[in-house]
Amino acid sequence: MFSKAISVLITGVNRGLGLEMVRQMVEIQKPPPRLLFACCRDPDGATHLQALKKEHPDIIKIIHLDAADPTSIKQAAAQVGSILGTSGLNLIINNAAVAVHQSLFDSTPEDMHRSFNTNTIGPMLVIQEFIPFLRAAAKDCGSPGLSCCKAAVINISTFCSSNELTKESYKEFAVMPYRVSKAALNMLSVCASLELQKHEILCAMLHPGWVRTDMGGKDGELSADESVEGMLHVMSSMTEQHCGTLQDWRGQTVPW
Amino acid sequence: MFSKAISVLITGVNRGLGLEMVRQMVEIQKPPPRLLFACCRDPDGATHLQALKKEHPDIIKIIHLDAADPTSIKQAAAQVGSILGTSGLNLIINNAAVAVHQSLFDSTPEDMHRSFNTNTIGPMLVIQEFIPFLRAAAKDCGSPGLSCCKAAVINISTFCSSNELTKESYKEFAVMPYRVSKAALNMLSVCASLELQKHEILCAMLHPGWVRTDMGGKDGELSADESVEGMLHVMSSMTEQHCGTLQDWRGQTVPW
Repeated sequence: MFSKAISVLITGVNRGLGLEMVRQMVEIQKPPPRLLFACCRDPDGATHLQALKKEHPDIIKIIHLDAADPTSIKQAAAQVGSILGTSGLNLIINNAAVAVHQSLFDSTPEDMHRSFNTNTIGPMLVIQEFIPFLRAAAKDCGSPGLSCCKAAVINISTFCSSNELTKESYKEFAVMPYRVSKAALNMLSVCASLELQKHEILCAMLHPGWVRTDMGGKDGELSADESVEGMLHVMSSMTEQHCGTLQDWRGQTVPW
Repeated sequence: MFSKAISVLITGVNRGLGLEMVRQMVEIQKPPPRLLFACCRDPDGATHLQALKKEHPDIIKIIHLDAADPTSIKQAAAQVGSILGTSGLNLIINNAAVAVHQSLFDSTPEDMHRSFNTNTIGPMLVIQEFIPFLRAAAKDCGSPGLSCCKAAVINISTFCSSNELTKESYKEFAVMPYRVSKAALNMLSVCASLELQKHEILCAMLHPGWVRTDMGGKDGELSADESVEGMLHVMSSMTEQHCGTLQDWRGQTVPW
């Protein structure tokens, strides 16, 4: 997958896809990451993550980060900075998200703000706070072009963010506040891709598939294992032509 | 334009496109609306609107409505309901919006929540609160099919909401929080179009063009007059096939 030992930060790793990303990166990826900042809201309650850390204590650094809380994101950046020192951060995966299962008529302003706060503003603040480390990585790299081994932000989106696909999927997945916050995340990511490209940082989105996790439910079409394997493969082959795009776990373009 | 005297509600009519919509509907549209609920945050300060109302007192009803305030939307619905009595409301135009001019790195969580609150949650609450009146209009109509003369919600969006067009337009119009809130509005509208269609209510989006208003600035490509003339024409020809679509003032589809 990734051709060199990169430093990575992933949010929302207490369970589901985030946890599986950490596992595959340290157990399967060759070479494994140099440093993996495993960010979650409740490090003490993340027992599976703690077990992985015990086996890979030099790689995994567990960091408290609540994507809904600007102060916590700022504090996480300071902590990561003190561990990184002068070296850069190659890859950020904004994976933390909340799914709010409501239709149009059940949704309250609070539902809307809550999903927007975690799923849209959270990734924005992570980009704002961590960009110095991404820029350091881009500068360190020395070679031209963009890639996830150089400096990149990958925002985990969903096919539910696609206006075009909503007609077919709304009956099964109303999740209106979730859809709206992820469509908002897509636009944020497109804007970010344009601003970050100037600093030789790639920004793109991924749809993990409909996965059997707590969020996806038991009827999902693929396991977390399969989804993450696919996404890591897609990430490792991203270049400048993928800036601002939304691909699924197989590398297929999801229509807006 | 509209083939019969409909009852209409428009938000954000103190100036710009909203005010011009009111003007053309009462001065040019034949037949003029039966009732036009002209909603704005500050009725007392809306001097041009007050002047129009003086000339058309039986048609124009000025209603206080702040799209950023759920209570005010609820109160506006009660007031409109008491004027409508048992008759329905045919057309709602969610036009009220704020433009937040910031790039990715200048934007704060407050900028994001503020634009999302007015531009996305506002239209959601308007739909939720006013749907009884739209349903009454759809029921009164008696004939099949969907149209703005029967029962419809038109959400004013923008080409800045288009992921596809952002690459070309971001340099000139960064307006990141505005773009994000309008991309969110598009998804909300697509969801709404599916839910409202069951009640024989049409829901679609319009891009007014880049207009010379306080929001669009003096370099805009068309006058408010031209934009509104185009939009009213597009609205008057909408059918069920336009549910969940985003067209510009000329009736051309804007890519997502």
